[in-house]
Amino acid sequence: MSEDQGYSGKALECLKKNNAKVGDSIKITADLTYSGILMPRYESGDDMHLVVKLGSGYNAGINIDDIQNIEIVSSSELKHEQNEERKEDPELPKILLLSTGGTIASKVDYRTGAVTPALTASDINEAVPELGKIANIDAEVLFSEYSENLQPDHWTKIAEKLDSLVDSDYSGILIAHGTDTMHYTSSFLSFALAGFPIPVALVGSQRSSDRPSSDAAINLIAASKFLVESNTKGIFLVMHHNDNDQTVACHVGTRVRKNHTSKRGAFETMGGHPAFIIAEEKIKKNMQDDFFKNSKYTPRMKIDTKVSLVKYHPGYDPELIENMIQTGCKAIIFEGTGLGHVGRTMYDVIKNAKKNDLFLGMTSQCIDGRVRMTVYESGRDLLDLGITPLENMTPETSLVKAMWALGNSKNTDEMKSLMLENIASEF
Amino acid sequence: MSEDQGYSGKALECLKKNNAKVGDSIKITADLTYSGILMPRYESGDDMHLVVKLGSGYNAGINIDDIQNIEIVSSSELKHEQNEERKEDPELPKILLLSTGGTIASKVDYRTGAVTPALTASDINEAVPELGKIANIDAEVLFSEYSENLQPDHWTKIAEKLDSLVDSDYSGILIAHGTDTMHYTSSFLSFALAGFPIPVALVGSQRSSDRPSSDAAINLIAASKFLVESNTKGIFLVMHHNDNDQTVACHVGTRVRKNHTSKRGAFETMGGHPAFIIAEEKIKKNMQDDFFKNSKYTPRMKIDTKVSLVKYHPGYDPELIENMIQTGCKAIIFEGTGLGHVGRTMYDVIKNAKKNDLFLGMTSQCIDGRVRMTVYESGRDLLDLGITPLENMTPETSLVKAMWALGNSKNTDEMKSLMLENIASEF
Repeated sequence: MSEDQGYSGKALECLKKNNAKVGDSIKITADLTYSGILMPRYESGDDMHLVVKLGSGYNAGINIDDIQNIEIVSSSELKHEQNEERKEDPELPKILLLSTGGTIASKVDYRTGAVTPALTASDINEAVPELGKIANIDAEVLFSEYSENLQPDHWTKIAEKLDSLVDSDYSGILIAHGTDTMHYTSSFLSFALAGFPIPVALVGSQRSSDRPSSDAAINLIAASKFLVESNTKGIFLVMHHNDNDQTVACHVGTRVRKNHTSKRGAFETMGGHPAFIIAEEKIKKNMQDDFFKNSKYTPRMKIDTKVSLVKYHPGYDPELIENMIQTGCKAIIFEGTGLGHVGRTMYDVIKNAKKNDLFLGMTSQCIDGRVRMTVYESGRDLLDLGITPLENMTPETSLVKAMWALGNSKNTDEMKSLMLENIASEF
Repeated sequence: MSEDQGYSGKALECLKKNNAKVGDSIKITADLTYSGILMPRYESGDDMHLVVKLGSGYNAGINIDDIQNIEIVSSSELKHEQNEERKEDPELPKILLLSTGGTIASKVDYRTGAVTPALTASDINEAVPELGKIANIDAEVLFSEYSENLQPDHWTKIAEKLDSLVDSDYSGILIAHGTDTMHYTSSFLSFALAGFPIPVALVGSQRSSDRPSSDAAINLIAASKFLVESNTKGIFLVMHHNDNDQTVACHVGTRVRKNHTSKRGAFETMGGHPAFIIAEEKIKKNMQDDFFKNSKYTPRMKIDTKVSLVKYHPGYDPELIENMIQTGCKAIIFEGTGLGHVGRTMYDVIKNAKKNDLFLGMTSQCIDGRVRMTVYESGRDLLDLGITPLENMTPETSLVKAMWALGNSKNTDEMKSLMLENIASEF
């Protein structure tokens, strides 16, 4: 985003004339009176509207032509200067907070109440003072993106950053992340950094800071406690457990899925309980085994995105798979029906995909449970055609693992063997 | 399947020589001794193996060359002749059972314990004698397919069959159906037969008949009770509610999803409770409103399958959508992330899809919850690009509805208006 925070043309002029900046608390008189925080805009925004986050938590777009007056109630810069210097306690362990964007990143910056990243260490301590009692927190902004805009390139950058910290004195690493694709990122890091010696917790929030039900602070506090007290390693995803109490769940990064669009307890461990539960200052461990199946740190950070995810359904056009083969796709993860099936209308194109040496893996669109392709004839047919059942791996984790395995293997056989190896508790 | 039940070449010769028929209880002496029911084979089967369903419920393939002896313990034909004539009670209501295949269809035929359809009325009454106390049941086999092989053509045939029964004296109609795609079929029937005056229950089973945990009989009994006692209309899906007790759930056919590969209580109503619960001979109604939003019977049974379901993920190749446009796709249902988002890497191809007059609908891969595209800038961008949010419709129901709306409208505007009309409790 430009330093004009996405505003251009008439809208930018209007802001300059009134000396208003993104993050300022303002009062606009137009068709109605709008009080709130001036928000940044995004690329496809026109140049005729200002966006203000209202006290209700919702954003309003106000047409420039309707605006009669803009009053600056308080400046974001003024507030920023008021931040206290943070105080470190030399007795406490150190945590690094890497910010990638999302609702939680906006949360920590109480000034804008919105998406501008402001994750200096003092911002964090100001926003969530409880953290200062758990650890000394350093902070660094990697990106400022909603997670629907994070791509495999971003995953690689996060992995490289973590890899550079392998010999650091941090007791744990927090990654502030948008919730939309947090489980895809956690899967990639789990495979790319197998055996990573420092525990990592991806943290997000489902509700933004200016809503009383926000889960940002509780998630950050729980994740920090988890990192310094749990005495474990692995890539975890730490989010509110359910909507009834103050419990936070710590999920294995390869077994978790976002299962609700808006609930605070949206993330669930598929086919089991969360690895840890953090409640009333206590951490309860449910996990039986180590996260990483091999304790030696083995970074393999390459990725090849030539993988397609195919959700089979009645009426699925096999021609779409033909097109994938033509455009150079090297692996397909099927979200089959039930125990791992696709209709026999797909058999011919599957044969052709095999002829072209694609890796073909089977998961289930049921989301939960295990594919079992030996129970019915359809499954046995698909096994005969060369499809590899991926047990109880979620479709999302299977997709990410396929991109990773493709990037870190020399041929389809080697890739298949990586796909079936339990690397980071994905099975 | 041929009358040789899928056997050919050497395997067929071997069966003829020993006078063995599919469904016979046999004992084969080979490398080991195998006792069980001779099963039919499927198209990609080789001609070197016989398949026997063992007492454990699992199938074994036995190589012809290893077979030393085949002993026929009891013939399926003999058992068949022993079936009693069924007795009708003129006081009871009438139900029609239409069979399409799947585990439940094999269930009702205790002779083979397998997939051969055998749904004569006397077979049913023999298998589940409790049904005879609820209703007089007529039976008809429409197809014999595992549901992963059912296609939109099959949906149309079921709809036409039901349409022909609109003035019949049946109190309700049971559809025995494989569980893999049962919720896709129930969605189509809900839209195609809006206002259908006779209640319809799709029934499946997750466990085959020869397992002690089979849910086939309990589901059939509960569905029959529901049809004759609930005094409702609509298209419902009736399946075991959970694994702990004898409760059966009756789900709205447009709000249900298969959420586990193997559990008996695999089906769940998304975002709410099942419409009815059948427990201890009682039917409890949870539903607040009528199933059909307009009580007039309005059959619209056409379908156009030129619809794609696109599950967005990091690294999704926009080229795949370009290919869909090129191959004549007329509508795309997105399974976006979170509240209904896709990355901005997709914006250009979405613009192009709009230019080509495709209908673009947004659902969420979270499965549960409602898309809300006004909360974040990404969502608002996508609204600006012309994407239609589909509220809390499941991705699967949205896909089926799009195929149906495309088949029954003259242009994209008309289709969009059908997509947003609440026809069968899909919102």
